[in-house]
Amino acid sequence: MDNALVDSIRASFASQGLMGTFDAEIIEISKGRVQIAMPITAAVGQQHGVAHAGASFAIGDSACGYAALSMMPQGAEVMTVEMKINLIAPADGLRLIATGEVVKPGRRLVITRGTVTVESADGLQREVALHQGTMIPV
Amino acid sequence: MDNALVDSIRASFASQGLMGTFDAEIIEISKGRVQIAMPITAAVGQQHGVAHAGASFAIGDSACGYAALSMMPQGAEVMTVEMKINLIAPADGLRLIATGEVVKPGRRLVITRGTVTVESADGLQREVALHQGTMIPV
Amino acid sequence: MDNALVDSIRASFASQGLMGTFDAEIIEISKGRVQIAMPITAAVGQQHGVAHAGASFAIGDSACGYAALSMMPQGAEVMTVEMKINLIAPADGLRLIATGEVVKPGRRLVITRGTVTVESADGLQREVALHQGTMIPV
Amino acid sequence: MDNALVDSIRASFASQGLMGTFDAEIIEISKGRVQIAMPITAAVGQQHGVAHAGASFAIGDSACGYAALSMMPQGAEVMTVEMKINLIAPADGLRLIATGEVVKPGRRLVITRGTVTVESADGLQREVALHQGTMIPV
Repeated sequence: MDNALVDSIRASFASQGLMGTFDAEIIEISKGRVQIAMPITAAVGQQHGVAHAGASFAIGDSACGYAALSMMPQGAEVMTVEMKINLIAPADGLRLIATGEVVKPGRRLVITRGTVTVESADGLQREVALHQGTMIPV
Repeated sequence: MDNALVDSIRASFASQGLMGTFDAEIIEISKGRVQIAMPITAAVGQQHGVAHAGASFAIGDSACGYAALSMMPQGAEVMTVEMKINLIAPADGLRLIATGEVVKPGRRLVITRGTVTVESADGLQREVALHQGTMIPV
Repeated sequence: MDNALVDSIRASFASQGLMGTFDAEIIEISKGRVQIAMPITAAVGQQHGVAHAGASFAIGDSACGYAALSMMPQGAEVMTVEMKINLIAPADGLRLIATGEVVKPGRRLVITRGTVTVESADGLQREVALHQGTMIPV
Repeated sequence: MDNALVDSIRASFASQGLMGTFDAEIIEISKGRVQIAMPITAAVGQQHGVAHAGASFAIGDSACGYAALSMMPQGAEVMTVEMKINLIAPADGLRLIATGEVVKPGRRLVITRGTVTVESADGLQREVALHQGTMIPV
């Protein structure tokens, strides 16, 4: 993948205040696929102490957005049009790891899917959320 | 509305770490309808400085969840099964205000809709996001 | 509303084979709001005899699409980008009536919401489905 | 897979009037995965002659529902709670083929994903729609 494009994705990510607040980091960038991880702490919890749906949503949304960006020309930007999330298990563990993937690239719209897993102390991963949504170049 | 139920919603909200991180507050609780507001700061921004979709999602999700809880017996709890969000305008302003409403209460599932508006310095509000989703009692 | 636009919506609707198969008709066209009704018969049923989710989806989707079209210049066309439906009650009755409404018109995308009700023999209506989705001019 | 369960899925499918109207057939049943195909004819078209989103939705929804049922005890039934569909390309071809798969089985809810492809005269398949939704045992 083009280094300049990888750099611009990293720069864009670094400028997302929410990702900084969540102490999130990009752990993989490839063409059409981006992974973002963040620690599960009390600061992102819901009332039972596991990660709030908003945390899973946010890194899944960013992962899908950057996956879309990874298939665009250098200098492009994308916004989320819509995103649907199914929460399939409580986000109870050490880290959230979101994987965003492009299902259908396009000039006008990019369709993406994502999954969010939690990583436990023993290193095991378990799916907690599924994303499906649309990005638009801006 | 029953005071004990209002108190339990406020207590549950206060225990959501993410809402504290966002400096969010409940500004209305009525039967089937809850409003949550939060300031738009750089800490919840995306790459263009406006609020990240994850912030709009999170308070809309919490507002829908507590709207569902407001129609349940004291002591109940709910989780989000799934939530769809359409981002209809950039979240550029001073405050995000989410309104969650119950469309269809039920013993097994509760269907909700939400809207998120931004409030500008001049006090005007503008819709930025629409939620539609399902809550389950746990 | 402009008569030529109303006529072109009616002509487009008449050319949708599926709407003919469903014996569906447009019962209201106004700026940003379209209603479509269809009879509930065994031919559109699911395994319990009530209307299949696919029938509710289809007329809600068409109603949202034509609501979007009603706010566009004469000669425009729209396609569905995505649509989410919550099925909130069994579609048991004589007629399905879908109402599609534009929440946010736009040059590049149009955001819509819809509801589907069933009408019983006694004339009462009850909500059975909620739509939220995105249309794109083509 | 248990023959009695396969038989009961086929019997349930045969009783879905809409599937009969669409001349749809089940082409695969395995544990957690069901495929349904239907011809693309003018009777299921939209205004440009390709298959209406409602047709893709309907067989995708049924495929997901029967995929869910394939993981349940004999005698169970399921209803769709909600379903989101992204339409990613025009459904232009000879046949629609929907594949529904269970992502997360559960006692209270079953989470599914689906894809719909069109098959052209040359036998090639192309994705036209993506489903993600929730089924509930009834």
